[in-house]
Amino acid sequence: MPYELFYWPGIQGRGEYIRLALEEAGADYIDVARRKGGEQRMMAMMKNRRLDPPPFAPPFLKANKLVIAQVANILFYLGARHGLAPKSEAGRLRLHQLQLTIADFVVEIHDTHHPLGPTLYYEDQRRQAVKRTDEFWKARVPKFLGYFEDIAARGDGPYLDGRRVSYVDLSIFQIVDGLRYAFPNRMKRFERKIPRLVALHHRVGTRPNIAAYLQSSRRIPFNADGIFRHYPALDR
Amino acid sequence: MPYELFYWPGIQGRGEYIRLALEEAGADYIDVARRKGGEQRMMAMMKNRRLDPPPFAPPFLKANKLVIAQVANILFYLGARHGLAPKSEAGRLRLHQLQLTIADFVVEIHDTHHPLGPTLYYEDQRRQAVKRTDEFWKARVPKFLGYFEDIAARGDGPYLDGRRVSYVDLSIFQIVDGLRYAFPNRMKRFERKIPRLVALHHRVGTRPNIAAYLQSSRRIPFNADGIFRHYPALDR
Repeated sequence: MPYELFYWPGIQGRGEYIRLALEEAGADYIDVARRKGGEQRMMAMMKNRRLDPPPFAPPFLKANKLVIAQVANILFYLGARHGLAPKSEAGRLRLHQLQLTIADFVVEIHDTHHPLGPTLYYEDQRRQAVKRTDEFWKARVPKFLGYFEDIAARGDGPYLDGRRVSYVDLSIFQIVDGLRYAFPNRMKRFERKIPRLVALHHRVGTRPNIAAYLQSSRRIPFNADGIFRHYPALDR
Repeated sequence: MPYELFYWPGIQGRGEYIRLALEEAGADYIDVARRKGGEQRMMAMMKNRRLDPPPFAPPFLKANKLVIAQVANILFYLGARHGLAPKSEAGRLRLHQLQLTIADFVVEIHDTHHPLGPTLYYEDQRRQAVKRTDEFWKARVPKFLGYFEDIAARGDGPYLDGRRVSYVDLSIFQIVDGLRYAFPNRMKRFERKIPRLVALHHRVGTRPNIAAYLQSSRRIPFNADGIFRHYPALDR
């Protein structure tokens, strides 16, 4: 039975980290909400009181009888099954730890355009977004991406965890790709500080399954509704 | 060998979710940074390039040779070993999913007093904090705590996952406790909407190991440096 991925149909968003893993793995999956009637089915699943527990929010993945929510949790499950994570407990925890750090960074990326919270429109918090974005690029991007650049520098293989690609590499690809889309000017200046992550982005993006996915209609283009948004006022 | 917990010595913060689990389990552990020279040792661990990977931030736990960071990851590891989580894979993923949802809520709790990001002082973002806190109580607290109240309502035992206490119950205890400290007025009004979580808070707080811990000097009091901060301007 194919996996069923449930995520908002109009954006890459947090669902993209799962899509990239399923695509790299060559897994059979249905992106449910992008099909006719699929979004209604997703909303019904979230209200289904027979699910234990119902997901708090998309994305979630149905794998036979299991319904798993939270990006890092889904990747933890998929990684072990599709060779995108080490098999040992120590290796799985190590990779999961890195993914949770990426998840923390994704929250901060989102908050650049939503400093007053997810309940207000960007247009109602523009000034605060400028300030938060300045702090983000001054302190947080160097801290998070510097951390991953260091890990890449220590490694003995082409990927963060060694010789084999992992779901963390796919997520770093998405982070670099998204920051380039949202902040082209700032990112252009910053990239010289993270040469290894830039090389990793290229290495992941040219893997056959990922390259084919990026060319396909299954890859939703970046847009102004996702996590990564290009607002010229925030990209000086 | 006792566990070694590494976390900032002056606050409950994110370390508290780990402390509560270790205390409930009756596990032998050392709160390293609260001992003489311990904070320096913690800082050295974070710069130790021989750790694979070094932690991005406290808390982290040393369990023999393993060094595990990220709160939910540490609880995932401890839960299985100390009867604070089910043994099945499905049960472990289910509980982890709930913990990751709590982690998302903790970020939003923190951001009430730091809407412009963690790099500026509260005093430099007071006005924005008022606005963000209003939105937080209007929309986010009802959404998050309503979700957990629903889960408590569905269950067939005194705890969220059934008959046995889990690390998620301990974290819900901390959330209720912290919101009461930080926002006594707002929380007093809100509690009638979450009677099951209030009862759960009492049930956890009176468990023998937890009650003893709360009375001890090992429990750091709430203060104005942690996640939960009492600023009267934010608690109207």
